[in-house]
Amino acid sequence: MPNPTAAILIIGDEILSGRTREGNAYFLAGRLAEHGIDCREIRVIADDHAGIIAAVQDLAGRFDHLLTSGGIGPTHDDITADAVAEAMGVGLDVRDDARAILAAHYAARDAEFTPARLRMARIPDGAVLIDNPVSAAPGFSCGNVHVMAGVPKIFQAMVEGLLPRLTGGTALITRNWEVRLPESSVADVLREIAGRHPALSIGSYPFEKQGAYGTNLVLRGADLSEVETALGEVQAAFPEAS
Amino acid sequence: MPNPTAAILIIGDEILSGRTREGNAYFLAGRLAEHGIDCREIRVIADDHAGIIAAVQDLAGRFDHLLTSGGIGPTHDDITADAVAEAMGVGLDVRDDARAILAAHYAARDAEFTPARLRMARIPDGAVLIDNPVSAAPGFSCGNVHVMAGVPKIFQAMVEGLLPRLTGGTALITRNWEVRLPESSVADVLREIAGRHPALSIGSYPFEKQGAYGTNLVLRGADLSEVETALGEVQAAFPEAS
Repeated sequence: MPNPTAAILIIGDEILSGRTREGNAYFLAGRLAEHGIDCREIRVIADDHAGIIAAVQDLAGRFDHLLTSGGIGPTHDDITADAVAEAMGVGLDVRDDARAILAAHYAARDAEFTPARLRMARIPDGAVLIDNPVSAAPGFSCGNVHVMAGVPKIFQAMVEGLLPRLTGGTALITRNWEVRLPESSVADVLREIAGRHPALSIGSYPFEKQGAYGTNLVLRGADLSEVETALGEVQAAFPEAS
Repeated sequence: MPNPTAAILIIGDEILSGRTREGNAYFLAGRLAEHGIDCREIRVIADDHAGIIAAVQDLAGRFDHLLTSGGIGPTHDDITADAVAEAMGVGLDVRDDARAILAAHYAARDAEFTPARLRMARIPDGAVLIDNPVSAAPGFSCGNVHVMAGVPKIFQAMVEGLLPRLTGGTALITRNWEVRLPESSVADVLREIAGRHPALSIGSYPFEKQGAYGTNLVLRGADLSEVETALGEVQAAFPEAS
């Protein structure tokens, strides 16, 4: 059975303007791979209601899961919950369990439970909450759309809470082999090896270290013995000293 | 006149698997902002022919420019040029000027000009070459699609060669103000200020430093005096010592 598929949607003007270097997608892509879920696409879009709806409908329709980051805080530019509810065709309102979580959080800190903070208890109808052990305000799963916060520490905690609920597949086996040759010197042999192993993903990633060019050859697949066989062929063609 | 718009398309399995942390989009988003081109979307997709065609047609159709990174090297998994040519409905073949650039590069290094290397001279019909001062193999602009290499050092050099050719607009003016309050404490006032300045983009970005929560308030707009006015309102509402 093929692995489940997923897309990641990052919502936030601050990434598109180059102000912030995104890290949540990198973290999540690695965790999905370990969990046996194939991440097929990552998208970064602006805090725009119509744009979020279009992206959610497109990606949630094409993949088994859509995981989002950003836009569920208390401020006027936090519009993800509204857009996801509309994209999925369900209502959105303050929900008692989410309100209770926030009320307890602020009461324990002698902080006022303001209308802005109450906004974070607005949850699409029928959604399942995603626990936020860092700052209480929950994420949620609405159908196959999993909505999480953008602050990295909170996002990562939510991902760890969510993943056990998602059925995983086979984590791909990865082997790599670094050669001190430019990519163009390994291309022909690599093409032959890839042709003999169509079930594997064989990639070549050129790098440059202290002015010398090299290539990292990466073999990935679900079957350990085939990955190891192909690795042996790569190693025979390009011994370490090359 | 509104600024030109752009999308960034990153092509590469190694990002989706979480193996590599993408940095080219971050670099390019910042450079586009400085050049007065509004980056509206960033997308990361796999090395898949049909997937690249669909993404190129979607993004090049919706935005003034599409800038891509990755998949134009010499190996079997470098399929971007073929897919872009097909997406744009033009042919693709080895082109004399591109071949001459590569031939001179390899001749100067006493290196063989192999069939794999010749692949990098395959250019869509009618495209304009993008100079590669690092390793010779050129990128290209095919209509409004600008195709560049994935190796960061080469990508950055190609971006610097390309940008002067693209008409820019007004670089947005950005001011920010950091407050030592959680986002939920600034939300109500910020919403009022944003309501008074609909032409501005006013964002709030929560952070955590050594266990204390704070929020970075970012005001962006094309009109300096309006940005400064709104900044004054933000500073009055949240003096530095708050």
